[in-house]
Amino acid sequence: MGKKINVGFVGAGYWGQKLLPKFLSAPDAAVRVVCDIHSGNRAAVQQKFPQISTAESCEAVLTDRELDGVVIATPPASHFSLAKKALDAGKHVWVEKPLALRLEEGRDLVQLARAKKTVLFVDHTFLYDPAVTMIRDMIRQGELGDIYHLYLQRLNLGRIKRDSNVWWNSAPHDASIVLYLLASRPKSVNLHGYRYLQPNLEDLNLAVIEMCDGTSAFIYHNWLYPENTAKLTVIGSKRLLVYEGKFEKRSVTVYDYEVEDSMDGGRLMDGLPTTIPSKMIAERELQGFQDQEPLAAAVKDFLESIRDSRAPLSHGEFSLQVLAVLEAGDRSVRSNGEKIPVEF
Amino acid sequence: MGKKINVGFVGAGYWGQKLLPKFLSAPDAAVRVVCDIHSGNRAAVQQKFPQISTAESCEAVLTDRELDGVVIATPPASHFSLAKKALDAGKHVWVEKPLALRLEEGRDLVQLARAKKTVLFVDHTFLYDPAVTMIRDMIRQGELGDIYHLYLQRLNLGRIKRDSNVWWNSAPHDASIVLYLLASRPKSVNLHGYRYLQPNLEDLNLAVIEMCDGTSAFIYHNWLYPENTAKLTVIGSKRLLVYEGKFEKRSVTVYDYEVEDSMDGGRLMDGLPTTIPSKMIAERELQGFQDQEPLAAAVKDFLESIRDSRAPLSHGEFSLQVLAVLEAGDRSVRSNGEKIPVEF
Repeated sequence: MGKKINVGFVGAGYWGQKLLPKFLSAPDAAVRVVCDIHSGNRAAVQQKFPQISTAESCEAVLTDRELDGVVIATPPASHFSLAKKALDAGKHVWVEKPLALRLEEGRDLVQLARAKKTVLFVDHTFLYDPAVTMIRDMIRQGELGDIYHLYLQRLNLGRIKRDSNVWWNSAPHDASIVLYLLASRPKSVNLHGYRYLQPNLEDLNLAVIEMCDGTSAFIYHNWLYPENTAKLTVIGSKRLLVYEGKFEKRSVTVYDYEVEDSMDGGRLMDGLPTTIPSKMIAERELQGFQDQEPLAAAVKDFLESIRDSRAPLSHGEFSLQVLAVLEAGDRSVRSNGEKIPVEF
Repeated sequence: MGKKINVGFVGAGYWGQKLLPKFLSAPDAAVRVVCDIHSGNRAAVQQKFPQISTAESCEAVLTDRELDGVVIATPPASHFSLAKKALDAGKHVWVEKPLALRLEEGRDLVQLARAKKTVLFVDHTFLYDPAVTMIRDMIRQGELGDIYHLYLQRLNLGRIKRDSNVWWNSAPHDASIVLYLLASRPKSVNLHGYRYLQPNLEDLNLAVIEMCDGTSAFIYHNWLYPENTAKLTVIGSKRLLVYEGKFEKRSVTVYDYEVEDSMDGGRLMDGLPTTIPSKMIAERELQGFQDQEPLAAAVKDFLESIRDSRAPLSHGEFSLQVLAVLEAGDRSVRSNGEKIPVEF
């Protein structure tokens, strides 16, 4: 193993404090400094990890000559400007999702990273869940048949955000899963969003994504829901699949089903029954991914892509597609749910 | 008890055969004749209930002078013309949902019943589920706080219809529940529908209903889904409620929750945390409705409304509102999911 990769953290709130231990336990990385404007967050870091220095201002960290990489785990509105400064200074950048709040800004970051030949990694953690990889392989190999539809729900009660709405918080996960799993490109987004808790922030929404190949996806988010879940259902022509994606409780279940072969193109012939019988044949839970931890795998990929000068799986260009879906949704919800084309 | 109410059946398919025993066991009713164009359905009725005469043609039944009421349990496309004939002949009419396929036709039926002074009953069975009545009372008494949102799912695998799409099959139930529970009127419907199994019939859809008072409802239908469920979730400002509405497995669960009172109108003040903590306090399952059977209660209300010359709970005017939502959805799905105002 060569020289360690020196990393600085910007932001040590809820997620930053989850991420920090993964970097600390990565043999390739050395975390040099953690900065946060909130003294409470700095104190929490100092107490848990007394060996790490902390700082109030991020300015020094972003341009620190000793650092190879910068991890940005701040509220979404600051991602663009912080990532831009770090890339400008020639750093490899890990930025939390979303990459930015505007597609134009995302494009700037991707171009800048390309010009500087540095790694731009966006934390779409689900790409590193081996369960998701397994589902992707099953889809590519045709095990589920033709894919008709994805249904994603991210429902919870607990962490209602004050600085961004439910779409910008949850959709980066769901859009990344949709784009990673499906071979087709997104065509349009309708986003129906509602505000019940705070006057300016949607806390409940439903997105309808249509893909170029006719596949569709519904994404349902709700910050006030009795069940705490992150669930994906894949509707295929041969099989159905349910992925429970909460990190603490992951499972993948596959359902074999059968639709009786009595369809004649939709014309009802006299004497034919008015229903097409269909039935479930088998249900089985898949194994083999539960002991692998997605966030640690993401950190590993980030560090290796720096060392090997290659793009990580969750690279800036991929995230631009996610951002295009997010932005289309944003425009849709502001146009009262209108269908908005997704533009790259 | 006075003279029995003589009833004739038109249609003895899947649902007609479920309904027939409820009329046979009602002490007020005498089922005189069951007609069905399919010999298989007639044979099934003859075998199970040898005392009932059957007929191939419905014409005689609809105008039979001996019959007080006619039960129409045929495919949706025939509801209007059959109900019209029966009402024209002065009969009391039980018609399966939906009342008709066009609002204009529904209006004709309601006017005709008014002119003839006969009962026009539409089978929105959920109005007779005591669990639904209980939820309505809780909402009216403010036990759930302000109502924000309803989420309804009707998902199954088994009976894929060949003669009508998933919206016209399932939405009469869900729209009737929404309109019965909420005090406000429906303002608009977006319907996003997709066809995967048959070229001309949607098998999967998502409706967004906005009510005049700002409440919203999502209705999700899918004919290919691993879980067989009919579930309503009510999001209120004080409590959340989940109603499992499959007749064979009904339950109502209430969740008390708390959102920390630190909201200041959406402006993020320096030093305030970026999330609003919220948490579940208690969960309890309600009792007292499981032994009551909705369909038998519906039959009882229909018969008593004839005897007492009064409107049943599920009367034609109520069903016209359901039909207005159905028609708006129908127009929306044909306009690619556009928001369509609901007109009465």
